[in-house]
Formats: sequence, structure tokens, C-alpha cells
Amino acid sequence: MNTRLQGYQQRVDRALEQWLPAPEMAPERLHEAMRYAVLGPGKRVRPALCYATGETLGVDLAQVDGIACAIELIHAYSLVHDDLPAMDDDDLRRGLPTCHRAFDEATAILVGDALQALAFRILAHDPAIAASPATRLHMIDTLAVACGSRGMVGGQALDLAAEGRQLGPAELEFIHICKTGALIRAGMVMSSLSADSASPRQLEQLDHAAKSIGLAFQILDDVLDVEGDTDTLGKTGGKDADRRKPTYPAVLGLAEARRLATTLHEEAVTALAPFGDRAAPLHELCDFLMARNK
Amino acid sequence: MNTRLQGYQQRVDRALEQWLPAPEMAPERLHEAMRYAVLGPGKRVRPALCYATGETLGVDLAQVDGIACAIELIHAYSLVHDDLPAMDDDDLRRGLPTCHRAFDEATAILVGDALQALAFRILAHDPAIAASPATRLHMIDTLAVACGSRGMVGGQALDLAAEGRQLGPAELEFIHICKTGALIRAGMVMSSLSADSASPRQLEQLDHAAKSIGLAFQILDDVLDVEGDTDTLGKTGGKDADRRKPTYPAVLGLAEARRLATTLHEEAVTALAPFGDRAAPLHELCDFLMARNK
Repeated sequence: MNTRLQGYQQRVDRALEQWLPAPEMAPERLHEAMRYAVLGPGKRVRPALCYATGETLGVDLAQVDGIACAIELIHAYSLVHDDLPAMDDDDLRRGLPTCHRAFDEATAILVGDALQALAFRILAHDPAIAASPATRLHMIDTLAVACGSRGMVGGQALDLAAEGRQLGPAELEFIHICKTGALIRAGMVMSSLSADSASPRQLEQLDHAAKSIGLAFQILDDVLDVEGDTDTLGKTGGKDADRRKPTYPAVLGLAEARRLATTLHEEAVTALAPFGDRAAPLHELCDFLMARNK
Repeated sequence: MNTRLQGYQQRVDRALEQWLPAPEMAPERLHEAMRYAVLGPGKRVRPALCYATGETLGVDLAQVDGIACAIELIHAYSLVHDDLPAMDDDDLRRGLPTCHRAFDEATAILVGDALQALAFRILAHDPAIAASPATRLHMIDTLAVACGSRGMVGGQALDLAAEGRQLGPAELEFIHICKTGALIRAGMVMSSLSADSASPRQLEQLDHAAKSIGLAFQILDDVLDVEGDTDTLGKTGGKDADRRKPTYPAVLGLAEARRLATTLHEEAVTALAPFGDRAAPLHELCDFLMARNK
């Protein structure tokens, strides 16, 4: 495990622990299930990318905690809903029973709904976010678009509709940019917005890097789903092919998909070049993510 | 039909029509389903209460449109999720097939998720909301709490957990204040926040009225579910008793439940007294809502 990533993970876990309602508070079962869905052994890739972006712009990481939490809560809610029987019907997530298996379907639906609301609450409420109210509104707007019908939720809808259909690379890219890329990008954009001193040019470069990283990450996920087994992944491996999901390995072949991920990674490296050494945490994190096997 | 309510309905329907993504835009089926879930023949009670609150404080109604839309989108999403087979398993809503019957379960889950995101997007983005960025953040915070695990979603969780159990009036009041009251109250609070000139005392009085109105409305809903038949209600009548849901008529008896609703209405009237004639739209709306038979 990369120590920088580990540090970010511990940081966001502490913050999540504080924002999530206590399990002793009514409705207890709902709160217990929300904590179960979020505080499990996740990789926290999205929060880590938020923190590393903040470091690139010299932002105090306490200002990024709320943003990192909001992104992880949205990600966690989407996993809970995606795992439902009516969607991907998955029993395992992060090596543990999925939320609707550990609790029940109704609770899992409500968990997702409440986690989404909590994400927006944090962005509106967290006193540690030092950005001006107008910038905060910009952050909320960014997140709402990224997780809406033209972002993450839309990507999932297109993904479900594409099962069993033959897609071209352009269509596939659109789905993946919506489904995974939009949220990763939103987290990095919100983190850069929290740097009052960032220039429009810097914001643009980071946004470009974020877009490439988000897509590279999803392609590698698809590749690992083909290559990995259930034990390594902590979720049911090979499911994409079983469901005839549109994936990069299916459309381009495994080798070509890996090559595309590498190209996108290189694009991100180029976009980050003007930040010099300050982008070191972000480079290190991307290198680690691209070399992972789960 | 009350003409004032009709005016508010037309107003919010026009605004919703504009905020909802066009059905020709990808993902088409998701957008079509979002529009189906929202633009059906709903009563628009919550938006109407937002507008009437705005009028009580002399706010230009264009400033309330976004708030009214956000509240109705949250309400519509909650109905879509509540109707799912894993929750209340309802086939009819507003006289039409529920969203998961007209489309499918996966789409209905995603519709709810996207509608919630859209509600927050409008509050962060709508240029017609003239309130300061700081006040807007306060509105977003208010909505996020009202529809979260200690508000609407929490109320639904408690409601499901209470099926078949014997509850006391205090427990029942807590559920209903969360499940229905919180959102109605949030809409009225957000509308009063949009009046820059409102005093803390006025905000408090309106909040008090909102709390009473929200609970009275829910009690009357329970009463009508017992008294009404499916044709009049446009949803399956008598379902609460079939599912042994905790309701006011079940706990207090029909006559006592009606009496409690009347008492709460009177409390709201008292809280609105200091506003004199300016509260006339709100009085008229409440009178109409209390006299309804569906």
C-alpha cells in the first residue's frame, strides 16, 4: 500500500466518521446501514485525488476534507444503488456483503438517498471550507451536475441500456466519462476551486488532467475485472463479461485497452507539467493507481 | 379547484418543464422517465405553500420558482422510490402507473437519484433566486437536512420499521414530522429566507405555521386514505390499513384524527395573525387543503 494514499485514506475516514450520523441516533438501523455502506474497506481513490489536487495548489488539506467526504458519499451511494437486485444485482462489495444483503433492499434504497443529501449538506455547511459563499455555490453546482442525469446517474442509465449491445469506442467513452469520470473530475475541480489563488489557466490544466485520470481509472477497472478473480477484487470478478456489459476490453481487446489507459495517464502527466514539483503527490498517486492490480 | 392553487400549479409546472432535461437529450429514456415522474397531474401542494409564503412576505414570485421546483423535485423523487416493490410496492400514483411500472425498476431508482441532484442544482444555480450566496447556502443546508436521514428519508425508514407495530401518538408524530412535515417546512422556510427584509421574529412565526400545516396535511392524508376509494384518490385507497401502517386514524380513531388536524390548522392561523391581510393567500390555501377530499 502506498503510504501517501494511506495517509489520505485515514484522513477522509476520520472526516467521514464525524459527518455520518451516530448509529445510536434514530433512525438507528438507517444510520447503521449508512455507516456500513461508507466506512467499509474502500480504496478512497476519489478523496485521495481531491487531496492531491489540493496539495498541487498549496491548499490546506482541512479545507479539502469536506469536499473529499462529499465525493466519497456520492460514490458510496452510487455503489449501494448500483448493487441492488434491479440494477447490477451484486452480493459482494469490497469483500463484504452489499448493503441490501447485509440489511434489506428498502434500507439500501434509503441509505443511498440519505447519503446523497448528506453530501450536499456538507458542502453547504462545513465551516472548514474557507471558500467564499459564491465559490461554494459553484462547488455545489459542479457536484450536482456531475452526479445528475448528464453525469454519473446518466452514465449508469446508459450502461444498463447498453448491456448486450455492440458499442463503438466513442459511445463507450461517453458512457464512461459520465459514469465514473464525471465524479472524479468534479472532486478535483472542487478541490482546485478551494484555492483562491488558482488562475483560470491552472484550473483548466487540472480539469484536463482530471478528465484523463478519470477515464484511465475506469478503463483499468474494466481491465482488472477481466483479469482479476473475486478474491483479489473484493467484488465478483468477471461479472462485466457475464452480463455482456460494454467495456473497453470487450470493444478494444485487453492489450489495446491497457494501452489507452497508459496514453491517458501520459496526457494527465503532460497537463500537470506546469505545476512542477507541487504536483508530485498527484503524480505519485496516479502512478500507484495505474500500477494497481485491484 | 381553487383558482389561486391553480395559478401556483401552472406557475411551478412551467418552471419544472424548463428545468427538467429535454426528452430528446441522452440518456433519453431516463429523461423521459424523470419528466413522467414529475410532470404528471400532481396537486403541487408543496410548491403552492412556497409561493403563498413568498406572498406573505412580499417576495417577487420569480424568486420563489426555483425553490418551489426544488421542493417538488424532492417530493417527486421520494414518491418514485417509495412506490418501488422493495418499499410500498404501489402500482398507481396520481391515477397513472407508478414510474417503475411505466418504465422499469432500475430506471425508477435512477430517476429518483437524478431528481434529487437536480433539486440541489437549481438552488445552487438558478439566477432568478436573488438571495445572497450566503443565504442560498443556508437554503441548500435547510433542504439537505430536511430530506436527509433525520428528515424525509429518516421518516420513511421509521415508517417502514413501524409497519405492524403498535405506536403511541408521540412516536407517530415524530415519524410524520420527519416524513412529510420536514419537506413542507423546508419549502416555506426557504421561501421566507428569500425575503431579505424578513425579521427573525417573522421567520420564526412562519416556521411555526409551517410545522403545524405540514403535520395537519399528513394527518388529513391518513384520514382520506381510510375514507377514500381508489378512484377519488388516484392512488390505491385503504392501503395503509392493509399494510398495517402506523397512521393517525389507526392510533387515535378517525374523529379524533380529524379534530387534531383542525387544531393544528388553528395553530397555524394564530401563528400567521401578525401578518394580517398579507397572509391571505396562505390562509386561503390552507382552508382549501383542509377541506379537500383527496
